[in-house]
Amino acid sequence: MMPRMQPELLARALNDLRGLLGNRLADSEALREQHGRDESWHPPCPPDAVGFPESTREVAEIARICGEHAMPIIPYGAGTSLEGQLIAEHGGLSLDFSKMNRVLEVNAEDLDVRVQPGVTRNQLNDWLRPSGLFFPIDPGADASLGGMVATRASGTNAVRYGTMRENVLSLELVLAGGRVIRTARRARKSAAGYDLTRLFVGSEGTLGIVTEIGLRLFGLPEATSSGVVAFPDIGEAVETVIETIQSGIPVARIELLDALQMRAVNRFSKLDYAEAPTLFLEFHGSQAGVREQAEEFGEIAASHGAGEFRWATELEERKRLWQARHDAYYAALALRPGCKGWTTDVCVPISRLTECILETQRDLEQSFLTAPLVGHVGDGNFHTLLLVDPDSPEELAEAKRLNDRMIERALAADGTCTGEHGIGLGKREYLRSELGDAVDVMGEIKRALDPDNLMNPGKLVA
Amino acid sequence: MMPRMQPELLARALNDLRGLLGNRLADSEALREQHGRDESWHPPCPPDAVGFPESTREVAEIARICGEHAMPIIPYGAGTSLEGQLIAEHGGLSLDFSKMNRVLEVNAEDLDVRVQPGVTRNQLNDWLRPSGLFFPIDPGADASLGGMVATRASGTNAVRYGTMRENVLSLELVLAGGRVIRTARRARKSAAGYDLTRLFVGSEGTLGIVTEIGLRLFGLPEATSSGVVAFPDIGEAVETVIETIQSGIPVARIELLDALQMRAVNRFSKLDYAEAPTLFLEFHGSQAGVREQAEEFGEIAASHGAGEFRWATELEERKRLWQARHDAYYAALALRPGCKGWTTDVCVPISRLTECILETQRDLEQSFLTAPLVGHVGDGNFHTLLLVDPDSPEELAEAKRLNDRMIERALAADGTCTGEHGIGLGKREYLRSELGDAVDVMGEIKRALDPDNLMNPGKLVA
Repeated sequence: MMPRMQPELLARALNDLRGLLGNRLADSEALREQHGRDESWHPPCPPDAVGFPESTREVAEIARICGEHAMPIIPYGAGTSLEGQLIAEHGGLSLDFSKMNRVLEVNAEDLDVRVQPGVTRNQLNDWLRPSGLFFPIDPGADASLGGMVATRASGTNAVRYGTMRENVLSLELVLAGGRVIRTARRARKSAAGYDLTRLFVGSEGTLGIVTEIGLRLFGLPEATSSGVVAFPDIGEAVETVIETIQSGIPVARIELLDALQMRAVNRFSKLDYAEAPTLFLEFHGSQAGVREQAEEFGEIAASHGAGEFRWATELEERKRLWQARHDAYYAALALRPGCKGWTTDVCVPISRLTECILETQRDLEQSFLTAPLVGHVGDGNFHTLLLVDPDSPEELAEAKRLNDRMIERALAADGTCTGEHGIGLGKREYLRSELGDAVDVMGEIKRALDPDNLMNPGKLVA
Repeated sequence: MMPRMQPELLARALNDLRGLLGNRLADSEALREQHGRDESWHPPCPPDAVGFPESTREVAEIARICGEHAMPIIPYGAGTSLEGQLIAEHGGLSLDFSKMNRVLEVNAEDLDVRVQPGVTRNQLNDWLRPSGLFFPIDPGADASLGGMVATRASGTNAVRYGTMRENVLSLELVLAGGRVIRTARRARKSAAGYDLTRLFVGSEGTLGIVTEIGLRLFGLPEATSSGVVAFPDIGEAVETVIETIQSGIPVARIELLDALQMRAVNRFSKLDYAEAPTLFLEFHGSQAGVREQAEEFGEIAASHGAGEFRWATELEERKRLWQARHDAYYAALALRPGCKGWTTDVCVPISRLTECILETQRDLEQSFLTAPLVGHVGDGNFHTLLLVDPDSPEELAEAKRLNDRMIERALAADGTCTGEHGIGLGKREYLRSELGDAVDVMGEIKRALDPDNLMNPGKLVA
């Protein structure tokens, strides 16, 4: 058990916070429990209270009060993180942004938008639809945009549109003690000083609290075509992806699901896809451009023994297809009711992807755990979902062993332990293996901006 | 005059540096003068000595020695910076990277490369040509890649390929005192901790010294087509650009030159273009894709009264065309022999670009200074080149007045005082107007990583 706040100090802090937030400060056990967990296998640990701010001004005042009483703050979006980012090991205040969920300003001519952090990606895209614009970053879950900033999320469209790193234009932040800053203005590019926007994207709430987000938008493509195609073995599927990327075909999505994951998807979503290694694809462009991309891709796939394509061009069909892909996580969990998911997240240079996936599959075949595999393979990023009973030390040990081997293999291939889920609690021990003394520099930045270690303490940097 | 090192301390530092570098430490007046200036109007100020390191190990040892004797270090690439980044106001050691100019590793399959910081962008692209790959970032001058990292350079291709921000994969750095870190591995994306790569891209040598750079590469497009087209007035040219960007046409380059700049280009490069507001364009893609883009663009341009297109599809023709564009800076200087260039660099949201350019042109018409205008207008970024006699206080005051007005206008449009040249000495006073208290955070990061203020002191942050 980590040290938590002393009861008298906590009582004073809660008293001050209640003065500010009234009944928007809650400490019922149910709410605290709900806010002390994420979607991962990590053992939950509740915060001392949950606050529901409604404005930047309130967040700044909360940070001031928490600074005065040394109370940790853990920002909370949609609760979909996967590395324990929300778990309140040191107690403190969970700051729930569900009441700060307004789209503040759409600048259609400039292809940008300003939102509050509680807006979810589906909410934003529903809002944008009439304007013919969309925000492409899509981690699968209907995450909050604040949470997506915090973990530097990416997902299925990153191969074409980049990650949150490339698509956040500016941030408004509340820092420890209550200072409010804005990291950039609305120009598409700037060389004005240190890139604070990028420093805070991916900082997992450990440097400050996101209170507003400027995002890049894109015009909905004139034509969109999605397809599904199965392969005789996983190696051929991965080689198809590698050649596609190397040929410069601007594929918008290219997702791998292994045979076990396809079985899970069929069961969960009542579909009848072949239960073989499969690619889910999407092309964006002009009518002619999409046709050209699909043809070029088709030739590469055929040379690797691909089966028949199942295409979906109508919006409703495409939605069904991608819903099945997005439900892959829940479909996998349903293979073993009551289990939790231990999701791995390595990402490697694409030339090393086939060997990494094949060796991982050999490991999985020899393990007693069940683990489907899905991948944003165009980026070199893939996940296995290790289905574990969180109460079984034996299963957790086996999951850790498999994860360790995957990470060791990824680092040997000059890759990373986490492509998109972040460090949180779950990857701290690997960060130094990956980046060596650069981790000290992260610690120095953390200490400079949060000397009392109140911003999501214990996550990312020790 | 800023405080410089005490003579005894300097002598000791130089003695230690000479022990390490031998005759690769120089303090001849000619070399010192050459290293104390850049291509801007800023008054030069020489360093105390110039070192020519050959390895990361040597740079680390230099940083250790300089730390011991409190000697400032100013990294030097090709000397093409435009905001006084190289000027040694506090003296110290200029670290010239011309001997660290090797391409270390091309990973063609992964579309990436590892280079030393002294490699220039032309040198890299010459090296890459046989592989069918290229590095797109093109600030015009044949800058060193280390310098391009330092200033977060962009230029003509940024509208399609992004800036150095998007195209640096990883950095090896020597920090104050001699620590060596690597910011990332070779995976295309990562959520492993704070984004130190992006923190150092654009830090202008004030946080550490770049000793190796990992860069993204792209396949040479199947087809490339360049063209030049004139417009009846500058407003129509800018509106054409705005509609092109808003339509999502993936133009690779779209550059504006005003009538005066076209006159300068014709004279300097012995060409016969119309002396009217002109767009220089380039399209990259498949044969069909390039045709389609050019047609769509042509329709937009025609609706704004564009003249006839002059196309260049052969490599040699295209080279000539872009050489003329790249020589624009020197062509403009040649309008007034012996003058210096005071280059402005604002960047605004594209919906505000027409008004910003038109109001700027009105200012210029009413000024006694000559100032051609060029712009990376697809990004909302444009430059005027104010031709000044650096010995005339009156001309410098007028240039400052014009620059102040442009920056005020850009900030009112939620833009930036610098799209791509950086802060250096020339923009420090505007940084706080643009970013407010975020500048304090930059100072805190600077102090955390360089507590003795030895890394390019006085630049970017005070």
